[in-house]
Amino acid sequence: MRISELSRRSGVSVPTIKYYIREELLPAGRLTSPNQADYDEQHLRRLRLIRALIGVRGLSVDATRQVLGALAEQQASPHLVLGLALGVIPPAEGEGTAAEAPTEQDGAVDALVRELGWQVYEGSPARAELARTMAGLREFGVALDWTGLLPYARLAEQTARLDLDALEGAPDPLEMAERAVVLTTLLEPALMALRRLAQEDESARRHGG
Amino acid sequence: MRISELSRRSGVSVPTIKYYIREELLPAGRLTSPNQADYDEQHLRRLRLIRALIGVRGLSVDATRQVLGALAEQQASPHLVLGLALGVIPPAEGEGTAAEAPTEQDGAVDALVRELGWQVYEGSPARAELARTMAGLREFGVALDWTGLLPYARLAEQTARLDLDALEGAPDPLEMAERAVVLTTLLEPALMALRRLAQEDESARRHGG
Repeated sequence: MRISELSRRSGVSVPTIKYYIREELLPAGRLTSPNQADYDEQHLRRLRLIRALIGVRGLSVDATRQVLGALAEQQASPHLVLGLALGVIPPAEGEGTAAEAPTEQDGAVDALVRELGWQVYEGSPARAELARTMAGLREFGVALDWTGLLPYARLAEQTARLDLDALEGAPDPLEMAERAVVLTTLLEPALMALRRLAQEDESARRHGG
Repeated sequence: MRISELSRRSGVSVPTIKYYIREELLPAGRLTSPNQADYDEQHLRRLRLIRALIGVRGLSVDATRQVLGALAEQQASPHLVLGLALGVIPPAEGEGTAAEAPTEQDGAVDALVRELGWQVYEGSPARAELARTMAGLREFGVALDWTGLLPYARLAEQTARLDLDALEGAPDPLEMAERAVVLTTLLEPALMALRRLAQEDESARRHGG
């Protein structure tokens, strides 16, 4: 296909596509004449994934290049493809946040993960987020320890099953990666909105609307 | 208690307490001498709620004054206290976001709420958030209609039950309001982090870790 069709089908403007090619996020098309190049379905899938990483996850061009490079080496493993696309696994060793001294909350997160039997990456940013939340709650006088998070974690397991179901049957690792980024990230505000509405309904039932 | 003790017990600095008094968010203490005022538990509860509304929900001083004013009139109804504290119900008629023309997505949100039988406020910002998400997903080529959100909404109902359980037994409407703001808002990043970890674990189970 020509660049104009690639633009239309990906939702990415022609100047932005040319910029991604210059930045080596996207391979150049096959030249069919000195001024015209041909692009294929693989370009389209890769471009859609780039759009998701930059436009939805908010990665920089450099970080996107790193993720795409790591993905290229790991296409045979759906688990690594998902981890890289969602930022659970950093694209290179020593990336990610600098190691900080472990806190009391980090121990609580370890206890939670052990109790759940979850197989999760040791350096996951999500673990640090949990530790920060528990510290923040304590600052506001709410003593919620990891056992208080346990029932929320059980519901998160069910949510994750729905999420992964939606990725089943993706015919290509790049497509699965793109879909995972879009669904995981764009659904976040919706899940929080559903919680607010459900709280309101639950409050109406308990306290009278 | 003196202002220094009020500061220590609320975690709000003395200059900030004085600022809140000047801004009429907090009533002045009872003067015990020309230079000394006495504060009681009600001051402490109100100050903690102010801290939650400004520091956690990120409201402006003006918006906080409005919420506190509306709360003062509705203390007898736990349902209205929660709705006002969490921003589900705007503190004054005609507040909130400007009405926009209904979209196709708004119809989908109505259908979802009807199916769930939820008793929720017509003008809730959470409804608009859901409509925005569905429009955003469509822009990225993901056709998730309201029936696709239904299983997520059922899990949100269970989450909301946990949330409301944590507010049971609050001895005072202001304390309940503060706790609702802190727990609802501060838990949001933790719930998203739990979802990421659960996705990783589910992916390891399905695809091999």
